[in-house]
Amino acid sequence: MSRSRISRVTITPIAFADPPLLNVVGIHQPFALRAIVELHTDSGLLGLGETYADETHLARLQAVARELPGHDPYGLAGLRALVSRVLERGDGGGAGASFGGMLDVDSPLDTVYSPFEVACLDLQGQEVGRPVSDLLGGAVRNSVPFSGYLFYKWDRHPGHESDAWGEALTPDQLVTQAHRMVDGWGFASLKLKGGVLPPDEECVAIEALHDAFPGRPLRLDPNGAWTPETSVQVADRLAGVVEYLEDPTPGIEGMARVSARTDVPLATNMCVIAFQHLPPAIAADAVQVVLSDHHLWGGLRRSALLGGITETFGLGLSMHSNSHLGISLAAMVHLAAASPNLTYACDTHYPWKTEDVVAPGVLDFIDGSVAVPTTPGLGVTLDRDRLGELHEQYLSCGVRRREDTVYMQSIHPGFTPNTSRW
Amino acid sequence: MSRSRISRVTITPIAFADPPLLNVVGIHQPFALRAIVELHTDSGLLGLGETYADETHLARLQAVARELPGHDPYGLAGLRALVSRVLERGDGGGAGASFGGMLDVDSPLDTVYSPFEVACLDLQGQEVGRPVSDLLGGAVRNSVPFSGYLFYKWDRHPGHESDAWGEALTPDQLVTQAHRMVDGWGFASLKLKGGVLPPDEECVAIEALHDAFPGRPLRLDPNGAWTPETSVQVADRLAGVVEYLEDPTPGIEGMARVSARTDVPLATNMCVIAFQHLPPAIAADAVQVVLSDHHLWGGLRRSALLGGITETFGLGLSMHSNSHLGISLAAMVHLAAASPNLTYACDTHYPWKTEDVVAPGVLDFIDGSVAVPTTPGLGVTLDRDRLGELHEQYLSCGVRRREDTVYMQSIHPGFTPNTSRW
Repeated sequence: MSRSRISRVTITPIAFADPPLLNVVGIHQPFALRAIVELHTDSGLLGLGETYADETHLARLQAVARELPGHDPYGLAGLRALVSRVLERGDGGGAGASFGGMLDVDSPLDTVYSPFEVACLDLQGQEVGRPVSDLLGGAVRNSVPFSGYLFYKWDRHPGHESDAWGEALTPDQLVTQAHRMVDGWGFASLKLKGGVLPPDEECVAIEALHDAFPGRPLRLDPNGAWTPETSVQVADRLAGVVEYLEDPTPGIEGMARVSARTDVPLATNMCVIAFQHLPPAIAADAVQVVLSDHHLWGGLRRSALLGGITETFGLGLSMHSNSHLGISLAAMVHLAAASPNLTYACDTHYPWKTEDVVAPGVLDFIDGSVAVPTTPGLGVTLDRDRLGELHEQYLSCGVRRREDTVYMQSIHPGFTPNTSRW
Repeated sequence: MSRSRISRVTITPIAFADPPLLNVVGIHQPFALRAIVELHTDSGLLGLGETYADETHLARLQAVARELPGHDPYGLAGLRALVSRVLERGDGGGAGASFGGMLDVDSPLDTVYSPFEVACLDLQGQEVGRPVSDLLGGAVRNSVPFSGYLFYKWDRHPGHESDAWGEALTPDQLVTQAHRMVDGWGFASLKLKGGVLPPDEECVAIEALHDAFPGRPLRLDPNGAWTPETSVQVADRLAGVVEYLEDPTPGIEGMARVSARTDVPLATNMCVIAFQHLPPAIAADAVQVVLSDHHLWGGLRRSALLGGITETFGLGLSMHSNSHLGISLAAMVHLAAASPNLTYACDTHYPWKTEDVVAPGVLDFIDGSVAVPTTPGLGVTLDRDRLGELHEQYLSCGVRRREDTVYMQSIHPGFTPNTSRW
C-alpha cells in the first residue's frame, strides 16, 4: 500500500447568489462567499473542503496551503500543528470570518484547520475506498434528517429582480414559505430564524406554523435578540409548541438565567462555539442542546468529539448551518451519520442556494433527509466549470466579507442590530 | 479497493505467570488470565485484540464472535450495536471481569466491545497500510513514556520457586526494585501500588524513593485504602514529593472531600471508570487526573473521546494498566501516541511478565518509553506457538477468574480487603 502525499493545493474563493434573508444583525448580502479547498495528491486523488471566504480567512488558508505539499493526508495531528505554526507567524486573533457579526471566535485555529481536515478525510476515504462516515466510526443511520429553515425576507435585493421565494414578513407569508419547503424537500421539522420582528410577532408566526403543521417540531432562533426576562415569557408562551428555543438571549450567564426558569430546552450556536465554552455552560446548566458546526469546531473529528461530550453530559445535539454549498453539506451528512446521539434534525441553508460547485444527483433531499453517500470519501464530485463561473462571480461581485449590518445600513441607514433589543 | 469482511473469529483464553504482587484486596494469583481475539478476513488479514478472560467475560466474547463473520471491519458503530444486541440476549449486568474486586462496572458493553474494536482497527490499519495511531488522528509523539510500576510483593508464590524480583516489603527493598526497574527499562517516573501497609509505612517508602531518585516524578496508589481524613494527611505529608495521589479514598464524594483540602492532584482509575461518572466527578471537582484504559472504556476511539473530554475540562490524562501482554501494550502505545493531552507517563505491568504472545523486537522500552510502531495496524505479530503454549497453561493452571482476595485468604484465612481500612 503506497502512502499518498499532498502534491498541490488550491484555494478558490467563490460567490453564489443569496436571497435577502433577514436576521438579528441585518440582511444577507446578494452574494454569499465560500472558499473551496482542493488537495491534490501525487497518487492522483483530489480531496475537497469548503469554508468561509472573508479576506482575512482566505489569506490564512493560502498561508497554510503553501506549507502543505508533501504532507500525509493521514497526519491530522501534524496538520493541526502545521496550521497552528502558520497562524502563529501571522496576525493571530479572531476567526477571520465575520459571521455577520454574530459570533466572537477567539482563535482562527479551528476555522482554518477545518476545511483541510475535511479534505484530508476525503482523501483518506478515497485511498481506502470507504465513505468518510466510516472514518468517523461508521454510520449509525443511512440518511440524515434536516429541518426546513424559514426566514423573514424581502422579495428582492434592492436593484435586483424578485427571487422565486417572494416576500415573507407576515405569519401567512411564512406559512406559505413553509409549505414550499415541506412540499419541495419533505422536511419533517421547521426552524424560523427570528430576531427580526418584536417577539410577540414572532410568537404569532410560530403559532401560525403550529396551526398549519400540527405536531411538527418547530424551532425559533432569534440570535440573542431578547433579554432574559423576555426569553422566559416567550418560553412560557411557546412551551409545548417549540422543540427548543435557540439562543433567545446572549451569553452563557443570560442563557442560564432563562434556563433556570423554563422547561423549554435551550439550544445554542452562539454562547457555546468552542470547547472552552463547554465547562462553564455545563456548570451553569445554561443550555440543553448544542448545535455543532464542523466549520467552526475544527473539522469532523473534533465535531465528533463535541458530539461525544454532549452525549456524556446529557445534552442534546443538533447541527448549525451558515449559507453553504454541496461540499459542506456532504461533510455535514457524514458527520451526522456517524453521530450516535444526534437528537435533532440538522439545520441547513441548502434550499436557499441556486448555484453549486458539486455535480448534482448525490445530495438530494428525500422526505427532508439526505442519504449518506456510500462511495469513497465525501462522495461528491467537483464541477470545475461551475467552480470557475462562481470564482468569476466572486471576482466581479464586489463582496469581500460577510457584512449583514453594513449591507442593511446601506439600505436603511438608521438600522442597528437587534441583539438584546427586546 | 475491495472491502474485506471478517470471515473467522477465534477467542483464545491464555494464562501467563504472574508474580505475587500485593494490593489492597489481596495478592495476584500465580497466573494472570487474558483472552486473545483474532479476527480473520476473507482477504487474508488478521486483526488482534487482548482483553480479560474471566469465564463470564469469555462466554460473552464467544457469543459476539459467533455473530461477527461477514462484518465489515470499518463498521464500528454497527459492531457496537451488534455487541449490545448480543449482550441484551444474555445475562446483562457486571463487567464479567472481576478486577480483583476493585472496580464496579455497570454494563459489560464497553469491556466486551473493546477487544473487537481494537482488532478491527488493526485490520483497518493493515488494509490501508497505516499504523493504528494514524486512524486515531495521527501520532503527536514518536514514543510513549511509561512509569515504572513498583509493588509490595512476596518473594514467591507459596509452593513455587522464588521469582527473579525477590521480596519487597520494606522501603529498602522497594528502592532496590525501583533501581532494577530504572536500570532495566529506563523509566523516568515511578508508581508505587499501595494500600498494602499502613499509610505511614507507605509514606516512608515514597520518601525513600524520593531520596534515592531525587526529582523523579512519583505516584502512590492505595486503591482507596484510606479515609478522606487520612488521605488529606498523606497529601499534606507528600506534597511536593508525589506528582499525584491515585484513588486515596473510594468514591467521587470521598475524593471530592479530599480534593477540597489539598493542592496535590488526585488521580483515579476507580471512581471514574465510565462516561457516566465524568459529570458528577467534574461537578464535584473530585479528581484532577483521569487514567484511561481502553479495555474498560470501550476501545481506542472511546478512550480518545475520554482524552478529549479531559482536555476540554482541564483534567490531566494518564493511563491505567492491569496485567497484560503485548497486544494490549501495542494498543496502549497507539492510543497514547494519538492523545495530544497525555499529561503523565502511562502505567504498565509489562516488566512483570515473563511470557508473551507477540513476536519480540517491536515493543522494547528505551529510556522508559516505547517507540510507536509505524508499520500497518497495531504493528505486532502473533506468535502462534506461544499462544498455544499459554492456552495449554490456561487449561492446566486451574485459574478461571481473577480472585486476589480469595487467593490471599487461601494463604491467610483472616485477610479482608484494606479498602477504607486506614
